[in-house]
Amino acid sequence: MTKVVMHGCNGHMGRVITDLCKNDADATIVAGVDKFKGIDNEYPVYDSLAEVDVDYDVVIDFSTAAAVDGLLDVCEKNGKPVVLCTTGLDDKMLAHVDSACKKVAILRSANMSLGINTLFDLCKKATQVFADAGFDIEIVEKHHNQKLDAPSGTALALADACNDALDEKYEYCYGRADRREKRPKNEIGISAVRGGNIVGEHEVIFAGLDEVITIKHTAYSKSVFAKGAVEAAKFLAGKPAGLYDMKEVIAEK
Amino acid sequence: MTKVVMHGCNGHMGRVITDLCKNDADATIVAGVDKFKGIDNEYPVYDSLAEVDVDYDVVIDFSTAAAVDGLLDVCEKNGKPVVLCTTGLDDKMLAHVDSACKKVAILRSANMSLGINTLFDLCKKATQVFADAGFDIEIVEKHHNQKLDAPSGTALALADACNDALDEKYEYCYGRADRREKRPKNEIGISAVRGGNIVGEHEVIFAGLDEVITIKHTAYSKSVFAKGAVEAAKFLAGKPAGLYDMKEVIAEK
Amino acid sequence: MTKVVMHGCNGHMGRVITDLCKNDADATIVAGVDKFKGIDNEYPVYDSLAEVDVDYDVVIDFSTAAAVDGLLDVCEKNGKPVVLCTTGLDDKMLAHVDSACKKVAILRSANMSLGINTLFDLCKKATQVFADAGFDIEIVEKHHNQKLDAPSGTALALADACNDALDEKYEYCYGRADRREKRPKNEIGISAVRGGNIVGEHEVIFAGLDEVITIKHTAYSKSVFAKGAVEAAKFLAGKPAGLYDMKEVIAEK
Amino acid sequence: MTKVVMHGCNGHMGRVITDLCKNDADATIVAGVDKFKGIDNEYPVYDSLAEVDVDYDVVIDFSTAAAVDGLLDVCEKNGKPVVLCTTGLDDKMLAHVDSACKKVAILRSANMSLGINTLFDLCKKATQVFADAGFDIEIVEKHHNQKLDAPSGTALALADACNDALDEKYEYCYGRADRREKRPKNEIGISAVRGGNIVGEHEVIFAGLDEVITIKHTAYSKSVFAKGAVEAAKFLAGKPAGLYDMKEVIAEK
Repeated sequence: MTKVVMHGCNGHMGRVITDLCKNDADATIVAGVDKFKGIDNEYPVYDSLAEVDVDYDVVIDFSTAAAVDGLLDVCEKNGKPVVLCTTGLDDKMLAHVDSACKKVAILRSANMSLGINTLFDLCKKATQVFADAGFDIEIVEKHHNQKLDAPSGTALALADACNDALDEKYEYCYGRADRREKRPKNEIGISAVRGGNIVGEHEVIFAGLDEVITIKHTAYSKSVFAKGAVEAAKFLAGKPAGLYDMKEVIAEK
Repeated sequence: MTKVVMHGCNGHMGRVITDLCKNDADATIVAGVDKFKGIDNEYPVYDSLAEVDVDYDVVIDFSTAAAVDGLLDVCEKNGKPVVLCTTGLDDKMLAHVDSACKKVAILRSANMSLGINTLFDLCKKATQVFADAGFDIEIVEKHHNQKLDAPSGTALALADACNDALDEKYEYCYGRADRREKRPKNEIGISAVRGGNIVGEHEVIFAGLDEVITIKHTAYSKSVFAKGAVEAAKFLAGKPAGLYDMKEVIAEK
Repeated sequence: MTKVVMHGCNGHMGRVITDLCKNDADATIVAGVDKFKGIDNEYPVYDSLAEVDVDYDVVIDFSTAAAVDGLLDVCEKNGKPVVLCTTGLDDKMLAHVDSACKKVAILRSANMSLGINTLFDLCKKATQVFADAGFDIEIVEKHHNQKLDAPSGTALALADACNDALDEKYEYCYGRADRREKRPKNEIGISAVRGGNIVGEHEVIFAGLDEVITIKHTAYSKSVFAKGAVEAAKFLAGKPAGLYDMKEVIAEK
Repeated sequence: MTKVVMHGCNGHMGRVITDLCKNDADATIVAGVDKFKGIDNEYPVYDSLAEVDVDYDVVIDFSTAAAVDGLLDVCEKNGKPVVLCTTGLDDKMLAHVDSACKKVAILRSANMSLGINTLFDLCKKATQVFADAGFDIEIVEKHHNQKLDAPSGTALALADACNDALDEKYEYCYGRADRREKRPKNEIGISAVRGGNIVGEHEVIFAGLDEVITIKHTAYSKSVFAKGAVEAAKFLAGKPAGLYDMKEVIAEK
């Protein structure tokens, strides 16, 4: 049984993961961390990870970028692995992740679903074929109207996956309304649609002469990300220091 | 038999319309206007409409915004109706259209296809129901990589159709990458995708709680616009002065 | 406060409606009916509606076709309105509905969502335009892998909505693999896709020459149907005898 | 310059290929074969391949299944390679292909486009991941209303590509309207939509818990298949006996 600390336990994803773990035979939440305490949690909730005084194997983090530095400090000090799901990390935070993973196991992924992580591979493979043949690459993502950032971290990660397959990297273009020109060859357009409570939809488009190929992922519920995070926690508990990603979790299953 | 002058006869749409008229029992092109002369036309081609010295009933215009003022001047002077398909007209040109249509019949439409013109109505009807119920409206359009403007004139016309159904008008938003905020209620997001030789795809999205409605139009060939323009020309020949649109052409059929 | 009996309270939709009513200021479930008793309900649960001995205003039914006759008998006898959401009723049951609605208020709908009920209107309007212009009509629906019937009741209702707009009715075609012929003009093809836990997706396609119009509805959660059923119950309580549908609920809002 | 005989030169695809070769610096049609002679061809047209008396390097075949046996006989006798694009071959014809390719180079493919041939690989890769994770596989294809067969040969080839990645092969299901049961695990559903003049659209759907992945190909014009056939002809001219497919053409580019 993997003992989990849920970092950001009273946010939306924290609560979905809490629900999921109730019915999971191999993972249990032993403590939570959240400044906000209004919820009737079934486990003790602390203000910070440093204060957690129960025994645990791994941390799942769905908090905010601002909390990540403190989280990493404690994990390094205590030798605890962490599944890092918070997005929007700046360069300094990313450098912190790079140094911390020399001491503890860290799994970081822009998106915890099996589907999206497979999409990274499919897009890489598709780019290898279609970019040479002169196809243009565009990404459209759709999310709920409460989302602050645009485009989504997952859309950027999909663009990165395409770029990984290219010798000369493409630029990202987030809107063409202010230009008046033909589409440049070496760019990936990324459009963000916002509305209702759409969980998350990502579409990678390869447009050539007289044919278009689209690779699309639709998430119907946030529990698909929760499930991925819990699987990652089980995978990471007990692993040696290093930087891991969801692909390894998927490969081991 | 309707006698047509094709204004912009050697551009892409001019050539598609020329091909179409070859097999049309009720319309024939008797002259073309184009500065560019490299094509082996089966009708005389002039530098400007003023120089056309053969008899004709109606002008179809698929040229450039810069040529529209001169075109309207000649039509007014000679009392000839014109199907105005060129987009990107500025406010002064639009004012010219408004004054010219007091003297001659002018049909102007952002898009000549039956499908798109029906979409205007469907979007209006959908907006009446869904806006009240708190749904968000977003538009995604896709076109070929040679298109200069973004978003397309048709996408803007679809947004206008939605706005027609609203008491308080929504603003248009052409990209959210530079903001960091929840989606404001009273806006319509419009995203433009560019790639390959996609003829034209428009998607109007109504996103509510746990349900999304999408109304979508796909054009597979430019001949769908050519066909609409020729039908409009047949309709317009002999009509009294006034401003017409495709809906009237469709209604009469 | 509308007092509701939930008929089929321990089935999937019964439980979703129970959850929803907990947070609804205007509707409360005062009793349930279900043969299955394994769930810890917060209201008394009976074997049949006849046995319910608490006061109530209206019944919401999400049970099975086999239970509908008994349900209608009790509603007629006690003068209680009923929101009838169970699908798959045979001709004899439908005749029973027709006679029962002379004594009590009955609301019956193939689908309880605002979106789908608006789609009925949009499809009718689209059919009026496109069928005359020679477009073909096709429907594709997608549902989870536990669904027994195919195509869905909603897909059939959408086909009916298209047919309502036609003078000569089209036949329905549920698969073309066993034929070897060009598509006949006067039919509506209906395809059913089954997989995963897809809540429900319906796509009505109008395919013409060089253009295709698609009107699509995606449900992301069953709570969208639950919400519609509860709104219908509030609407129906106290209404005179008659047959009602969701359109009237929507219109009154 | 590759000298091509166009077998089925006056059918739809034969004419598209003829047009394409006019502007191809590396391939030219030196003769055609067709029973139908109503068209003003720019090359000599014969009743059968046996009668062709001009020198040629390779045959492109877009005729009918019934003509394939005769075609193969002549190619074997004369040692001429053939690009075999006709679909709907029965087992006896397929056996003939197997024996003929021991004497001459034959390239056979269900679909000549780069996009679809890449889709085969993407679907194989996706199936490897998703089938193990319990996802269901479904295919929806859309074609024009003149197409006789359903589902398309390409849809079947995509299903085969998925099956190639599975240890236990799945059955194909062409419609569920006549059953009343939950979806069996080990099948691939294939739906065929017919309407307008849709060139060809194929969608492979992987549906899991709370997420769906879709890999889709849209052809906007038949010239995409013509281009593939001509590339294949250039590739095949001069190749030793054997059975080739489009993947090798793509790999060599």
